[in-house]
Amino acid sequence: MNVEIKIFNSLTKTKEIFKPIEEGKVKIYVCGPTVYSSSHIGHARTFITFDILIRFFEYLGYEVKYVRNVTDVGHLSGELLEGEDKIVSQAKKERISVWEVVDKYMFEFFKAMDLLNIRRPNIQPRPSQLIPEIQKAIDKLLEEGYAYITETGIYFDVSKFEDYGKLSGIKKEELIKHRIEPDPTKRNPADFALWKFCDEKYPLKWEYKGKYGFPGWHIECSIMNLKHLGETIDIHGGGKDLIFPHHENEIAQSEALTKKQFVRYWMHVGFVTVNGEKMAKSKGNFVTIFDAIKKVKNPEVLRVFAMRAHYRSDLDYNEAVSYTHLRAHETRHDL
Amino acid sequence: MNVEIKIFNSLTKTKEIFKPIEEGKVKIYVCGPTVYSSSHIGHARTFITFDILIRFFEYLGYEVKYVRNVTDVGHLSGELLEGEDKIVSQAKKERISVWEVVDKYMFEFFKAMDLLNIRRPNIQPRPSQLIPEIQKAIDKLLEEGYAYITETGIYFDVSKFEDYGKLSGIKKEELIKHRIEPDPTKRNPADFALWKFCDEKYPLKWEYKGKYGFPGWHIECSIMNLKHLGETIDIHGGGKDLIFPHHENEIAQSEALTKKQFVRYWMHVGFVTVNGEKMAKSKGNFVTIFDAIKKVKNPEVLRVFAMRAHYRSDLDYNEAVSYTHLRAHETRHDL
Repeated sequence: MNVEIKIFNSLTKTKEIFKPIEEGKVKIYVCGPTVYSSSHIGHARTFITFDILIRFFEYLGYEVKYVRNVTDVGHLSGELLEGEDKIVSQAKKERISVWEVVDKYMFEFFKAMDLLNIRRPNIQPRPSQLIPEIQKAIDKLLEEGYAYITETGIYFDVSKFEDYGKLSGIKKEELIKHRIEPDPTKRNPADFALWKFCDEKYPLKWEYKGKYGFPGWHIECSIMNLKHLGETIDIHGGGKDLIFPHHENEIAQSEALTKKQFVRYWMHVGFVTVNGEKMAKSKGNFVTIFDAIKKVKNPEVLRVFAMRAHYRSDLDYNEAVSYTHLRAHETRHDL
Repeated sequence: MNVEIKIFNSLTKTKEIFKPIEEGKVKIYVCGPTVYSSSHIGHARTFITFDILIRFFEYLGYEVKYVRNVTDVGHLSGELLEGEDKIVSQAKKERISVWEVVDKYMFEFFKAMDLLNIRRPNIQPRPSQLIPEIQKAIDKLLEEGYAYITETGIYFDVSKFEDYGKLSGIKKEELIKHRIEPDPTKRNPADFALWKFCDEKYPLKWEYKGKYGFPGWHIECSIMNLKHLGETIDIHGGGKDLIFPHHENEIAQSEALTKKQFVRYWMHVGFVTVNGEKMAKSKGNFVTIFDAIKKVKNPEVLRVFAMRAHYRSDLDYNEAVSYTHLRAHETRHDL
């Protein structure tokens, strides 16, 4: 613990000396995958990065409590949660139940993490375990005026949270003015869903406020943090695509609930591109973790790949280059 | 599907020709472990047995929907749920949170099942995901007079369920007369807990009826069945130690709720003994799955071991005999 660690804090945009809340302990939360499809090499890079950080803390003698969730409800296709739940869409496509979709991709993800030799988190919570806690938190936000109910759902009123935008740098006035938002029941286009109402045929639902509905993706992470790590945590991490709106909204909800600082150090990992392009299902250039492991034979090679750039920079998975560089380790590994 | 399968039904105590509810499909539920310690070779035998059954059904062309739970709350040390939650006890012992205990032993169990090459269930639900559904079911049992509230919890009134005892053959009059029961708030000693109240310091709790509390072990399985497989299922399995009270109570709750037959075929696997003795932590003869795998080197050998007796008979893990017989397959397998 005599080693001084500096962390680039996405909140302050500066390198800061790491000081834990409690001497000798680190409480860290990393946003895990939504389990509706196979995880890709971008996920692998993020989780390898935090694995290295955590192992370094443990090497130094810190006691690390690491929580990484598995999202099993509420992650809708639009970023303001206006589309369909990704798990519900996938269940229709595969003609199986939503809970079979979740188990299928969740266990595939667990296997990928084990193959990549990533230290298992102390707790891997799922939002479906926390519905009562989420509802109770929303009740409190409603009581204190941070949220309001409409016929379509319960929304967080960003105008009520003074610091909104402090992580992403996005000004809420700009956001409110420019955002295209199809739900006319919201007070402001920038307001985001804490809970969405649905009809009784919808497959992922719970009763609340006399209707069926389901939680929003953002509130889930706030409550999983609160339950398992407490009101203030040391480090919160994720891919940089999560800065806005996911992490910005987590801050708004958590700090509105507790009136305390939510996270001391925010860390964000850069993108993995493929031949210079962003990965997208529509482009057909989506590389899953299992695709990559099959290619490089030994999963450890992907750990080396993940370290080939600074974690905050983007990193290109150029197959030709990677394959040549990486095939040095040619141990076969059964999948 | 032209093959006639006969199953010994623990409910009727006869071999019956298997007829699925829906042509070509099998809905099967097997009680999984409570994740407070390492699973032992008795668990391995049970899950290998059902794995063989399920693979045989699939070989014949049946579409199998297999649900096996992981119990993460409510399994108390006494069989009528009068002791302490096993996970809470373990958390105190290891000085970690209850949810860290759950994750630790749950992932160890998943790994053991994978090493034993057991086909993954379609869904592995956890009671902590189903608290609202459990509470709703208890509300219904209360409304219809099957249950009552006392200051210590909510209990199922076995005198209200006519068929109580039909699986185990235990007569409820005998049970009521002889059972030692420390809770004087219950109407009958044989009544069992659907929900237990606790104080606010208790680590595994939810709000319900204006108090803190947690679900009983038995109601959890009834609701996991109902949610994922429906009101009537084809096959329900488990170790034979679960016949009474766990499965007897599942029947009472489920059939009181739905007024329909809960399970068509009940299947129970015999015990694994060690040198002729029942395994018990107090005796120090507890053999975990990982102990056994280390001993026999190749996990597949444990599948052979599990098949060395008819599944309903008890099977002795006599180390001398087993080791000699089994070391034929001496492929090293990394744990």
